[in-house]
Amino acid sequence: MLRPYLDTIMNLEQIPTPAAVLDVSRMLRNIDRMQQRMDALGVKFRPHVKTSKSWPVVQAQLDAGAQGITVSTLKEAEQFFAAGVVDILYAVSMAASKLPQALALRRKGCALKLLTENTESAHAIARFGREHDEVFEVLIEIDTDGHRSGVKPDSELLLQVAAALEAGGARVAGVMTHAGASYDLDTPEALRAMAEQERRECVRAARRLRAAGYDCPCVSVGSTPTALSAQSLEEVTEVRAGVYAFFDLVMSNTGVCALSDIALSVLTTVIGHQAEKGWTIVDAGWMAMSRDRGTQGKKIDYGYGQVCALDGTPVHDYIMISANQEHGIVSHRGQAGHDAATRFPVGTLLRILPNHACATAAQFPEYHALSAGGDLMAWPRFYGW
Amino acid sequence: MLRPYLDTIMNLEQIPTPAAVLDVSRMLRNIDRMQQRMDALGVKFRPHVKTSKSWPVVQAQLDAGAQGITVSTLKEAEQFFAAGVVDILYAVSMAASKLPQALALRRKGCALKLLTENTESAHAIARFGREHDEVFEVLIEIDTDGHRSGVKPDSELLLQVAAALEAGGARVAGVMTHAGASYDLDTPEALRAMAEQERRECVRAARRLRAAGYDCPCVSVGSTPTALSAQSLEEVTEVRAGVYAFFDLVMSNTGVCALSDIALSVLTTVIGHQAEKGWTIVDAGWMAMSRDRGTQGKKIDYGYGQVCALDGTPVHDYIMISANQEHGIVSHRGQAGHDAATRFPVGTLLRILPNHACATAAQFPEYHALSAGGDLMAWPRFYGW
Repeated sequence: MLRPYLDTIMNLEQIPTPAAVLDVSRMLRNIDRMQQRMDALGVKFRPHVKTSKSWPVVQAQLDAGAQGITVSTLKEAEQFFAAGVVDILYAVSMAASKLPQALALRRKGCALKLLTENTESAHAIARFGREHDEVFEVLIEIDTDGHRSGVKPDSELLLQVAAALEAGGARVAGVMTHAGASYDLDTPEALRAMAEQERRECVRAARRLRAAGYDCPCVSVGSTPTALSAQSLEEVTEVRAGVYAFFDLVMSNTGVCALSDIALSVLTTVIGHQAEKGWTIVDAGWMAMSRDRGTQGKKIDYGYGQVCALDGTPVHDYIMISANQEHGIVSHRGQAGHDAATRFPVGTLLRILPNHACATAAQFPEYHALSAGGDLMAWPRFYGW
Repeated sequence: MLRPYLDTIMNLEQIPTPAAVLDVSRMLRNIDRMQQRMDALGVKFRPHVKTSKSWPVVQAQLDAGAQGITVSTLKEAEQFFAAGVVDILYAVSMAASKLPQALALRRKGCALKLLTENTESAHAIARFGREHDEVFEVLIEIDTDGHRSGVKPDSELLLQVAAALEAGGARVAGVMTHAGASYDLDTPEALRAMAEQERRECVRAARRLRAAGYDCPCVSVGSTPTALSAQSLEEVTEVRAGVYAFFDLVMSNTGVCALSDIALSVLTTVIGHQAEKGWTIVDAGWMAMSRDRGTQGKKIDYGYGQVCALDGTPVHDYIMISANQEHGIVSHRGQAGHDAATRFPVGTLLRILPNHACATAAQFPEYHALSAGGDLMAWPRFYGW
């Protein structure tokens, strides 16, 4: 994954800013931590690759013991299948218009699993499969926390969706849930309770399906906070999580990681000051950080990101308070310090920890991956649909 | 700019979702409106291409009469210089580390103008120019509204920056300001006053520089709201604006455009419902819309966007109330309607107007440009730095 220009770029000082810097040691530590936890709890782990969209990262997850991947777009499925991953779960309720793309992947040998949560989509999948002599494996999305989509585990709809699938010739491959509401919690007790709710409600759905005669082999749960908080995963067969590989300030607010675990940062150059306001202007704005304000209204509001020195050490209480497209305004979070120009002179390089790694990473065509030994590698990432 | 697959994609129903749809008629109307206004006010117009980052859009702006372009990154300068644009203003305070890239552009014949607002950067530009026998043309950024960077027109710093440039061998090519605070205004009176403040303060800076012996030929002002509100542009030589070509909900809130002027929308497919909550789930989340919540706390809060039917007609009071990475939740903005599943059945195509066109467009590798005649073209756009 080395790119030619890295023959000339040898250290962070030489990277054009803004840039996405990935601390590989932290990333590998985060990946190992999650995999060891899943191994100890006796479940398969299927990382969500929507966070990185980058093969070296996914390779590290698979090397650590992950079995298969989760994707949020069929483009991710296509890219990672081309890279050699066969077992792929597309974890967004299937739109009928995307079935030809899914069929093409399966025809090439991809063990692509689909998701649904309504009878219209279930019928469409089954019908399209019949027409093309393909038995689609479909998981049913379960709503265990009310935050988004899915059917309730005790609903009639659950059995109706299963019936629509199997009567039509598709296969109920399992149930899947994502307790995204966990992102808003910030105590170990609340996170453990949410993890248990996610497990219990998803298992309840699987039991109902089995009682009704469906195999339902897979019980898939997960979000980074619940995966790192679950005390038991009894009757769960696999766990999914994505942002754990990089972590971010939202995750730090939940308590499942420290600032020193955050592997992704945005490298930026100081380009000016408004001295009397205590502002330092940097060349990373929202185009680099993304517009994600996920820490707004949470335990600690980091604005658009936590300021760190070039070596990655957080500069206490300095955050990006505001962002325009290619300008960030860095300031002390409390009373304005009036030493901005002496503290961060023009030309200073800073690293900004992001609120939400998935959103910030998406703004960049590549990561500048910094190894423990200090080597820099360019890891490409893709975008779009 | 036609892409091969458009041989098979003939209408909006066939585009894979989510997708960025650009209504070319609206765009051309917006471009003409601005150019005619600038012509009437007797100033040059230099569009900011950070909104589109796409050659067919810039071509239309130049065809309408624009003279030169404004860029927010040197990558934009490189891309559009390669496409044939020579007169380019890089409107972000120059970082010394980017000077080799700027020099390379000038050496190839690009009339690239730089920007600075502090003596450190001014010295660095002049020194680098001397070392490489290049006279950089540099505009001084003026702060006329306190919203971001720039020197005050009546400050000592203004003359110090000019002195640092010319004593070092660079040329003070002019003054430049951007009244970004105009985005927060929403009455014609307030916008006219802001436009006059932007003009007056920038002209004041130019006069001071000329009185001190500098040529200062260029007086460059602009933002979409002030450009569309200014009553006089006396002593201004050029105006810049970017988002006017597409418009968006933030601009609609300022009052400078109507919903029916917004040229960019995100095409999305309904993939499910939470019927009892009145929610419709679509396959455009924040990865498609961006995380921009620019209408939050403004005259009308559109959530993550205004819902429209496939033909572009707004569906009154239906907005995207919440967004996950690849899921959007569409709902009535007031009391939840319970007719979501019948109103927007699974498979329905909707178009969502964005809060901020610059941010939403940036999420997509291409526009699906829909001509007045109903033809679809794929217009590529670039990203990154």
